[in-house]
Amino acid sequence: MPFTVAVLVGGIACMAPATGQADDDSAPISGLKLPSGYRDWRVISVAHEEGKLNDLRAILGNDIAIATSREGKLPYPDGAIIVRLAWSYDPLEESAQAFGHPQSYVAGRPKNGVQVMVKDSSRYAASGGWGFAQFDDGEPVGEAVQSTCFACHSIVKARDFVFNHYAR
Amino acid sequence: MPFTVAVLVGGIACMAPATGQADDDSAPISGLKLPSGYRDWRVISVAHEEGKLNDLRAILGNDIAIATSREGKLPYPDGAIIVRLAWSYDPLEESAQAFGHPQSYVAGRPKNGVQVMVKDSSRYAASGGWGFAQFDDGEPVGEAVQSTCFACHSIVKARDFVFNHYAR
Repeated sequence: MPFTVAVLVGGIACMAPATGQADDDSAPISGLKLPSGYRDWRVISVAHEEGKLNDLRAILGNDIAIATSREGKLPYPDGAIIVRLAWSYDPLEESAQAFGHPQSYVAGRPKNGVQVMVKDSSRYAASGGWGFAQFDDGEPVGEAVQSTCFACHSIVKARDFVFNHYAR
Repeated sequence: MPFTVAVLVGGIACMAPATGQADDDSAPISGLKLPSGYRDWRVISVAHEEGKLNDLRAILGNDIAIATSREGKLPYPDGAIIVRLAWSYDPLEESAQAFGHPQSYVAGRPKNGVQVMVKDSSRYAASGGWGFAQFDDGEPVGEAVQSTCFACHSIVKARDFVFNHYAR
């Protein structure tokens, strides 16, 4: 059970894997970059992670991903890109003061990196057609996340490995 | 203190006011409509409300609002529109099963209406230049929200009555 939890947390956060997985560095995701302009993309959904992650997050998509998510017609086609931003989970000072306890939580500083999944059914055939990457302060954290991200996203294989539905 | 809390909750949710405030129906916000295409607007921030509201929310802005929010140069100019969407705060089934308790919360069904604030310093001079409205299932809930929204947003008057900062 501890392993299961670790994989899940790793997947949701796409954390770098523990030691002993160095071979994953050879995963074929070289060149997967943080797409330009992603902060201007439209919203697929929003979420909150508890526990160690403790963040508020927005899941954005490029035009292809938005169209597919909105229509709900899976799988996502090649070219779809989904980006997950996250921020610290901060109580809103004014409401906390008024209520005497936190009532409103808002996005604070960037946290837990920016994560990207790119659909390319040929290139990433071994991982459901998705390439995964994480960027901390704009820099990739290493290609080993490919396997840890994929391991967790596999629990929603029936949804083409994408956790979030389009929030209507 | 109960009144303070009620106003705050009412403001954050822009709930319809209690009885005894019927005069607010004459607030000059007639014609304030749900802007077309708002679901495609860019993200200012995301948030979570606890308690009775119990939702996940996204705060979106039109181009004017996004530019001002991003630059942080207040006040917002006329023409700025901010829209707050909200959804039920749902545990992600898959992670809850794996952890034995909720870990990830995702956006569920639409909840607590869609709220809009529009900057027009002449028309809404009496409320800091902002007009407020709420739409439930696309229909305005009544003009009385103008006063309840404004009452709560006044606690962040120093931020031009806008709770959320741009999430970078």
